[in-house]
Amino acid sequence: MEKVVVAFSGGLDTSFCVKYLKEEKQMEVHTALVNTGGFSDSELEAITQKATALGSASHVNIDVTQEYYDRCIRYMIFGNILKNSTYPLSVSSERAFQAIAIVEYAKKVGATHIAHGSTGAGNDQVRFDLIFAALAPHIGIITPIRDLTIARHDEIEYLKKHGYDYPWSKAKYSINHGLWGTSVGGVETLKADGELPEEAYPTQATKSGAERLHVAFEQGMPVALNGKKMSGVALIRALKDAAAPYGIGRDVHVGDTIIGIKGRVGFEAAAPLILIKAHHLLEKHVLTKWQQYWKEQLATWYGMLLHEAQYLEPVMRDIEKFLTSTQQHVSGSVEVKLQPYHFAIVGCKSPHDLMSSKFGEYGEVNKAFTGDDVKGFTNILGMQMKIYNAVNENQN
Amino acid sequence: MEKVVVAFSGGLDTSFCVKYLKEEKQMEVHTALVNTGGFSDSELEAITQKATALGSASHVNIDVTQEYYDRCIRYMIFGNILKNSTYPLSVSSERAFQAIAIVEYAKKVGATHIAHGSTGAGNDQVRFDLIFAALAPHIGIITPIRDLTIARHDEIEYLKKHGYDYPWSKAKYSINHGLWGTSVGGVETLKADGELPEEAYPTQATKSGAERLHVAFEQGMPVALNGKKMSGVALIRALKDAAAPYGIGRDVHVGDTIIGIKGRVGFEAAAPLILIKAHHLLEKHVLTKWQQYWKEQLATWYGMLLHEAQYLEPVMRDIEKFLTSTQQHVSGSVEVKLQPYHFAIVGCKSPHDLMSSKFGEYGEVNKAFTGDDVKGFTNILGMQMKIYNAVNENQN
Amino acid sequence: MEKVVVAFSGGLDTSFCVKYLKEEKQMEVHTALVNTGGFSDSELEAITQKATALGSASHVNIDVTQEYYDRCIRYMIFGNILKNSTYPLSVSSERAFQAIAIVEYAKKVGATHIAHGSTGAGNDQVRFDLIFAALAPHIGIITPIRDLTIARHDEIEYLKKHGYDYPWSKAKYSINHGLWGTSVGGVETLKADGELPEEAYPTQATKSGAERLHVAFEQGMPVALNGKKMSGVALIRALKDAAAPYGIGRDVHVGDTIIGIKGRVGFEAAAPLILIKAHHLLEKHVLTKWQQYWKEQLATWYGMLLHEAQYLEPVMRDIEKFLTSTQQHVSGSVEVKLQPYHFAIVGCKSPHDLMSSKFGEYGEVNKAFTGDDVKGFTNILGMQMKIYNAVNENQN
Amino acid sequence: MEKVVVAFSGGLDTSFCVKYLKEEKQMEVHTALVNTGGFSDSELEAITQKATALGSASHVNIDVTQEYYDRCIRYMIFGNILKNSTYPLSVSSERAFQAIAIVEYAKKVGATHIAHGSTGAGNDQVRFDLIFAALAPHIGIITPIRDLTIARHDEIEYLKKHGYDYPWSKAKYSINHGLWGTSVGGVETLKADGELPEEAYPTQATKSGAERLHVAFEQGMPVALNGKKMSGVALIRALKDAAAPYGIGRDVHVGDTIIGIKGRVGFEAAAPLILIKAHHLLEKHVLTKWQQYWKEQLATWYGMLLHEAQYLEPVMRDIEKFLTSTQQHVSGSVEVKLQPYHFAIVGCKSPHDLMSSKFGEYGEVNKAFTGDDVKGFTNILGMQMKIYNAVNENQN
Repeated sequence: MEKVVVAFSGGLDTSFCVKYLKEEKQMEVHTALVNTGGFSDSELEAITQKATALGSASHVNIDVTQEYYDRCIRYMIFGNILKNSTYPLSVSSERAFQAIAIVEYAKKVGATHIAHGSTGAGNDQVRFDLIFAALAPHIGIITPIRDLTIARHDEIEYLKKHGYDYPWSKAKYSINHGLWGTSVGGVETLKADGELPEEAYPTQATKSGAERLHVAFEQGMPVALNGKKMSGVALIRALKDAAAPYGIGRDVHVGDTIIGIKGRVGFEAAAPLILIKAHHLLEKHVLTKWQQYWKEQLATWYGMLLHEAQYLEPVMRDIEKFLTSTQQHVSGSVEVKLQPYHFAIVGCKSPHDLMSSKFGEYGEVNKAFTGDDVKGFTNILGMQMKIYNAVNENQN
Repeated sequence: MEKVVVAFSGGLDTSFCVKYLKEEKQMEVHTALVNTGGFSDSELEAITQKATALGSASHVNIDVTQEYYDRCIRYMIFGNILKNSTYPLSVSSERAFQAIAIVEYAKKVGATHIAHGSTGAGNDQVRFDLIFAALAPHIGIITPIRDLTIARHDEIEYLKKHGYDYPWSKAKYSINHGLWGTSVGGVETLKADGELPEEAYPTQATKSGAERLHVAFEQGMPVALNGKKMSGVALIRALKDAAAPYGIGRDVHVGDTIIGIKGRVGFEAAAPLILIKAHHLLEKHVLTKWQQYWKEQLATWYGMLLHEAQYLEPVMRDIEKFLTSTQQHVSGSVEVKLQPYHFAIVGCKSPHDLMSSKFGEYGEVNKAFTGDDVKGFTNILGMQMKIYNAVNENQN
Repeated sequence: MEKVVVAFSGGLDTSFCVKYLKEEKQMEVHTALVNTGGFSDSELEAITQKATALGSASHVNIDVTQEYYDRCIRYMIFGNILKNSTYPLSVSSERAFQAIAIVEYAKKVGATHIAHGSTGAGNDQVRFDLIFAALAPHIGIITPIRDLTIARHDEIEYLKKHGYDYPWSKAKYSINHGLWGTSVGGVETLKADGELPEEAYPTQATKSGAERLHVAFEQGMPVALNGKKMSGVALIRALKDAAAPYGIGRDVHVGDTIIGIKGRVGFEAAAPLILIKAHHLLEKHVLTKWQQYWKEQLATWYGMLLHEAQYLEPVMRDIEKFLTSTQQHVSGSVEVKLQPYHFAIVGCKSPHDLMSSKFGEYGEVNKAFTGDDVKGFTNILGMQMKIYNAVNENQN
Repeated sequence: MEKVVVAFSGGLDTSFCVKYLKEEKQMEVHTALVNTGGFSDSELEAITQKATALGSASHVNIDVTQEYYDRCIRYMIFGNILKNSTYPLSVSSERAFQAIAIVEYAKKVGATHIAHGSTGAGNDQVRFDLIFAALAPHIGIITPIRDLTIARHDEIEYLKKHGYDYPWSKAKYSINHGLWGTSVGGVETLKADGELPEEAYPTQATKSGAERLHVAFEQGMPVALNGKKMSGVALIRALKDAAAPYGIGRDVHVGDTIIGIKGRVGFEAAAPLILIKAHHLLEKHVLTKWQQYWKEQLATWYGMLLHEAQYLEPVMRDIEKFLTSTQQHVSGSVEVKLQPYHFAIVGCKSPHDLMSSKFGEYGEVNKAFTGDDVKGFTNILGMQMKIYNAVNENQN
């Protein structure tokens, strides 16, 4: 009997896959859920029970939250990555790590196939298929939902017919909750001018007034919140708890999907937005102009390729080396002010700040250069424009 | 007697220049103020009187607001230009047009020299000198403040000695008010972690609640506010009046000055920020992925060169052609929500929207492509990664 | 009876298509050949006869050489486009214009389908399919060779069986002859270290000694050869006739195909290589540093998208506007030296040359700036590095 | 008595500096020559004697050839760096290492000043001044030739007057001989259309016929020539000896100098050109498309900043990390064909070649993908163009 690993989420689509592969394909079905930080213990427990009830030969919850942080979120912070200046890649970035964990698990258990529940309409099918094929070309990929283009109602019927009766409810909004933010799609995001209502957001805006936070960075990585040392993963969670109840971190992104269609999605990502803006401010103080310029160039592509299923493209590893190199002096503390629906980066302190230096000769502008220096500088800087004007104005 | 045109602002430095050039250099001093949208009629009247009182042989107020909009602000909107994702180049962009107007005026009146009041410490000296030298290499440039490194107190004494006694008061903050935003420098911005107090901002935050606006664009240019057609200049002013009293548009920018030092400045620029974000959203709907990508590349440089005194670099004209070409279909209406200290771009409507189309074959995803198409696409997209892994994994 | 337009080349594959569609699909087959400059009159005559003999209801030879020059070659010259610094896109660029002409013709004659002879292994299928679908989504595309994966031998048999007996000979090398160069594939190019023999190249190296040519450009376009005015198309042909017999213009390119596989091809493209290098030299003299930099950036993408079937991507039109704008002063005469297997760009003369100017103040370095100017310039240029070293060396 | 280190070359200008600083400034003059690979032992011996004869308190020849290779040439090979697709930065790259060695030596001997012989007209003054000031802001810089703008004839007279009589001869061409190529300036290069005569080139073209070489690379670095292992420095020298007598490696470059003027220079650089083209060919086989693209982007800037005196800009270290990362699999052997005035890269062999693989599933195109895959791929690739055309064509 052929062994298949189903990337299982506990939802209707992947539940259908389990039963379908077992009944129709006579496969030995093993389920695996990859947790990149979006599942609670009780959710994981419920999913495990579901898998068993559906007849999975074995179920495993694989926690790759730390790996996801180390191998991806870290670089998104280094690169201040916001797609189209807006979206922190909350969903697209975790997919790669879910896929990698699944394929490694499938190899480990000797599966001949992997199944996932993607439809044929979205980005995720590309992300899963591409990574599976690149890392395990000999493992087959099965996508029952995409291939059968089966309707929701028929999936429920099929499960019921095969002895699994569950009160499936259809949420008004499709929510993907992860460490690096939560996406919210549906109803209003399906058209270009719809606005998500307050209740669509997972965290309700309940806080008023204002408060201040201090985020400390070491070599580009967030290491302490309000003076308390903690891991990056813990810090992201603590920051979210503090900021999201102000209604901070909400926005709607419209962007180009991998398949060329424009897609629109709401999101709530207080911690990513604050961390990126705080990190960026610190960089403005400690990096040179050209370091900032080239970081932005490479980070834009890191984000684009990550979003578009190409985390495994070798240039990604090269870019990571570049980004890491730039972070050598990105250490210091950043002050952030939170208030309803708004946060501001107040300022920073860093021993590597190129703005204010303890060294007298640079702290005082008039010690570092003279007006005559600037006259000379300007003459040379403008040289080519002067020549160009002289040569071409007398010609035309 | 040699004729000099002084770029006159009515402030202490340029007042000193007038008197100094007349008395010490025996020059025929003509004053000119270039208005890029930051001066009211009464301010201009007061400045004219001051010039006369100081002994200017003639004074002129040159209004280039429309030219500034047509030849620069327009392209900053097309390019969604925010330096370091933050600052709309409120000050740096107007300097070029002030310099161009001064040099044209100097040529017209046959001046042998131009004088300006810049010190030797900032960016503006570079902007003025470079443009003057490029457009009129035979006109000499005089900068008394920079060359004498004279103290404020001594300037006042000198003017008094030569019969001009004026109650010069030193503002706590250095303010530059212009059509494309107001900069606020001093006290807190001199260090990396200072926060400007409410009273430092020119517009006080007095509005509460929320309101919605609609900005209409035609080929990239804002043409109507809430359905009322108006010129770009008028629209910027109306938008500022509506949004600034919410405390919207405030931020602090730290960036690399032309002379290599980090500089920090506060600003209030409600209209630029809203217009840019609204325009950007519209572009996300109507432009292709690669149009957006290349616009951003070229706009970053347009902003950088503009900021760094190089408006006359010929590549700027080439970039303007590119940007204009991209705007062909950037037409539509954008909804904006204003609330205290925060605005959100709600959505847009455009006949050129690539997201939602009236054409059935594209509106329905399942008509435009199949799951099998995406499988094929993914296989080809991942081809090089698959080959790379196969070739190199078996080697190492 | 459904009407199909076959993109006909007279070769075995498209001959099979004609017969196959007529016999098996009962379609009314019309053939069209699009000439982008690679066919002689006698070749066209022979192809026309073949089409008729195969039973084409009508045949047309569409000459788009001038359009190909105006809408594409021109921009490849402006952009000095050599893929991977090597290949002038000889084949890939003409495909777009062949596809556009075919789809326009199909619309004109009211065809419901277009057929082309591409296999499933190469780039051309993508170029044809994409342009057909973008410009005429309602016209069906038929590709018998790709779909049947039919062998050469079986095609010949099929034709014979249906009354078309032709002495098909298999060339050792696959040759694509076009205005912008000739590609040569086969045998040695199928592996990474093979070298094409002399006889594989269409033009044999027969000239010895050396000669000099002068190419005149006006606004970026070649307009005269050795003082004789001629059209761009005529100049490319005359230049090829002069240079190719020296063995000039030969090289082998290995690059990334659209489908992710590395592909290797030989080519002979004397005129493109000489024109591009001559044009580039002229630009180095008349353009500013940043014009050259941004031209190269955009031209690299123009070439990449053109190569990869995306001539219709809207950003291509934007890039064309940019490139055209940069060519305003790219006028002058360039001297080229030809010798066996080698050409050198000797020098140029241009009234817009920024190197040597008739204006004394710029011709003499010591009038334009002083050593003190450069000292000041260097101090400011190095400012950030100085601060960086001072801040960080004392930290570490 | 203040101690000064003179960057000494044995030429007239730096000889004048030694005597001038001793006699006029009463300084204790120490001379140092930094050899980046362009001096023979006998030349160094002669220079040492000259220094002593001029009254240098001590003279040292500092050999940094290996360091120059390790910290710079290596990255120029990794980056395939040819300025404006032409010039291998023969001179500009060594200056940085000469300056660094001088400043380190000056610190070591406790000098208060450094002197160099640059005039006020060229690039070198910027390169020296900038690096000296960045690495040792407290050490003064003295440039007698620049400051005195002294004529050649007067330098000779001054030396004679102070007891140093030497038969200074003025070469027709200014030659700079270094490991990474030799520059040749003068007479014909001073205008835009001059052609250097055969005798201007340091290596005369004496070889005829043709020969073949094999260069082996390991992780991007050249490690063997014709199967013989040798250091990079030795390989560059052996390659030059083999290729330069064919007249290979000659060209004339016109480019933008640091000070904004166009400059033109001839050069002979057989080894750099061959190594770069061979390395580039190998990369086309083993790197992915996006690795090649981003390498080229970053390498262009590495070359530009290196050329423009900014080797110490921190982003250079970041780029080096990126480039090094890309070279992981750039190993293999490249065949080169030499003939008079021309070389060709014939082909390569590499275990990391992505073109031809030992793995059956990728070697055969029809195993890796089907025509249907490409149809699906093309449909998705063209999606946005299709939508764009449908939306906008029906609008206009």
